[in-house]
Amino acid sequence: MDIGGTKIMTALFSAAGKMLSKEVRPTLTEEGVESTISRLASAIKDTMTQHRLSPSGIRAISIACAGGVDSEKDVVVTPSPNMPGWTDIPLGDILRERFGVEVFVVNDASAAAFGEHLFGAGRGADDMVLFTVGTGIGGGIIIDGKLYLGARGGAGEFGHMTVEASGPACPCGNTGCLEMLASGRAVERDAVARLLRGEESILRDTLRGNIEDVSAEQVGEAARRGDTLALEVIARASYYLGVGMVNAVNIFNPEMVVIGGGMAELGELLIAPGRRLVAERAFSISSRSVRIAAAQLGNEAGVHGAAAYAHRQSSRRSS
Amino acid sequence: MDIGGTKIMTALFSAAGKMLSKEVRPTLTEEGVESTISRLASAIKDTMTQHRLSPSGIRAISIACAGGVDSEKDVVVTPSPNMPGWTDIPLGDILRERFGVEVFVVNDASAAAFGEHLFGAGRGADDMVLFTVGTGIGGGIIIDGKLYLGARGGAGEFGHMTVEASGPACPCGNTGCLEMLASGRAVERDAVARLLRGEESILRDTLRGNIEDVSAEQVGEAARRGDTLALEVIARASYYLGVGMVNAVNIFNPEMVVIGGGMAELGELLIAPGRRLVAERAFSISSRSVRIAAAQLGNEAGVHGAAAYAHRQSSRRSS
Repeated sequence: MDIGGTKIMTALFSAAGKMLSKEVRPTLTEEGVESTISRLASAIKDTMTQHRLSPSGIRAISIACAGGVDSEKDVVVTPSPNMPGWTDIPLGDILRERFGVEVFVVNDASAAAFGEHLFGAGRGADDMVLFTVGTGIGGGIIIDGKLYLGARGGAGEFGHMTVEASGPACPCGNTGCLEMLASGRAVERDAVARLLRGEESILRDTLRGNIEDVSAEQVGEAARRGDTLALEVIARASYYLGVGMVNAVNIFNPEMVVIGGGMAELGELLIAPGRRLVAERAFSISSRSVRIAAAQLGNEAGVHGAAAYAHRQSSRRSS
Repeated sequence: MDIGGTKIMTALFSAAGKMLSKEVRPTLTEEGVESTISRLASAIKDTMTQHRLSPSGIRAISIACAGGVDSEKDVVVTPSPNMPGWTDIPLGDILRERFGVEVFVVNDASAAAFGEHLFGAGRGADDMVLFTVGTGIGGGIIIDGKLYLGARGGAGEFGHMTVEASGPACPCGNTGCLEMLASGRAVERDAVARLLRGEESILRDTLRGNIEDVSAEQVGEAARRGDTLALEVIARASYYLGVGMVNAVNIFNPEMVVIGGGMAELGELLIAPGRRLVAERAFSISSRSVRIAAAQLGNEAGVHGAAAYAHRQSSRRSS
């Protein structure tokens, strides 16, 4: 499963890694954590019913979840900004008890990185990093063909790498985080500020006065249509994303940097400035050899990665 | 061997990893690259003579070298600021030809990380990062108990991670690099600027008018004696080092962060602010479990790491 602030995706995979079915339902975070967990459990039950599966027919339930996840204990420790209330939720234990099967919990961007590595843009790249640029910014790391989670599962928080120490405070407690400067929310914040200052933009027609409701998608669409304000707002986010990419390239010397998440639908508009910045600013050993490309699996990267993660962990735990 | 801008350290190790001898001679970079390479070769010859070794008695020559090193080709690609002229120097081929033995070249901070992991502060920490804070700032990464070099050997450049994108331009081509804000050279630059502005400091007595000659060591010594200017200069560097540590903790979720290099001799004065910043600002999954400590092997970390690196690579290449 892949659980985000908006949607719960549930997919059934065969032991050979083939996706047999997929469904999506809303998370409805506003109804609270208990309710979301019930919705998760219902989605699992519905998939089992649909395929006439009993718990003994299921090898494992694997959850890619937004937020800071302790993958040793299968606990969501720190909530994603989009999933308020998910503090220290022992999701693994809860589902293990309810279904009597093995459960794995992993950060959603880490799962997406593993999915893209195995089946998407990162195929063949044994050392790879992924940035997921959506409402927030997440990340995942592949080292030597394996998903790298760090000591507890917390690795890959590229969105909370400080790139502008004197910049804005982030709700995470850090300052000048990449997420504050290059995420969908940063784009929205920037666009609102400029519209409120009275700058010209075709976004005014779209929004009809409800300036504060502007979405990153709307800014992206206006940019594609050549709107100056929107182009500048996207350029600023792309610049900072590029700064983050330079850091990742200098730190990991990866074969590949993959850019996913909703904002990646902007394609080269989002990615090209970072590619240039890496060529200009990163160490040549690392910049010469790195490929930088958009993710390929869209919103299915998480379930693919979660399934593969469970498959490998399950083999390891039972061996 | 460990080659830096100031010293060449040559050590002989037994196959079992025991250090049999060690000597140090000056690099004399001002005499040019050719001359330094001759000095390297002489140091090797002298060690061979001293131990009555022929090339057939040597398993490998392993070089930890400052700068951007391509460890696939054993070439120093990008010079360290302290070793001007070392651009695209095929050190591996040169020494292989001269001595007829296997040669390995690896970045010096990566070698130091491996040394500290195997024999120093990082023993037992399978996921570990090292910052070497000296004139410049380098870094090394241990993943799953192995030295991580990335696709070509360029990984671990923590000194050239942007932490203040709107900050000063770095000679490396990037902006707001950690090295510009937290290295020995940054400390010196900061101290000179403040002394030239006329601020009070006991450093004036030490320097007797030669303000621009101030060294990071002198600033550190003045800070230890309670000098306000020196304490503030060190505090600023420590703060930025802490920002870099928070980034490394959020990215790697490591078991351990080790701080080495000449500036690490300041001990807690340099490290404690970063430890606090990690506790305050990093994600709790990662900050709760990380240990942050000074390196233990001093300037011997590089030769220990280089020897161990060659030992593992040599086994791999010949298998």
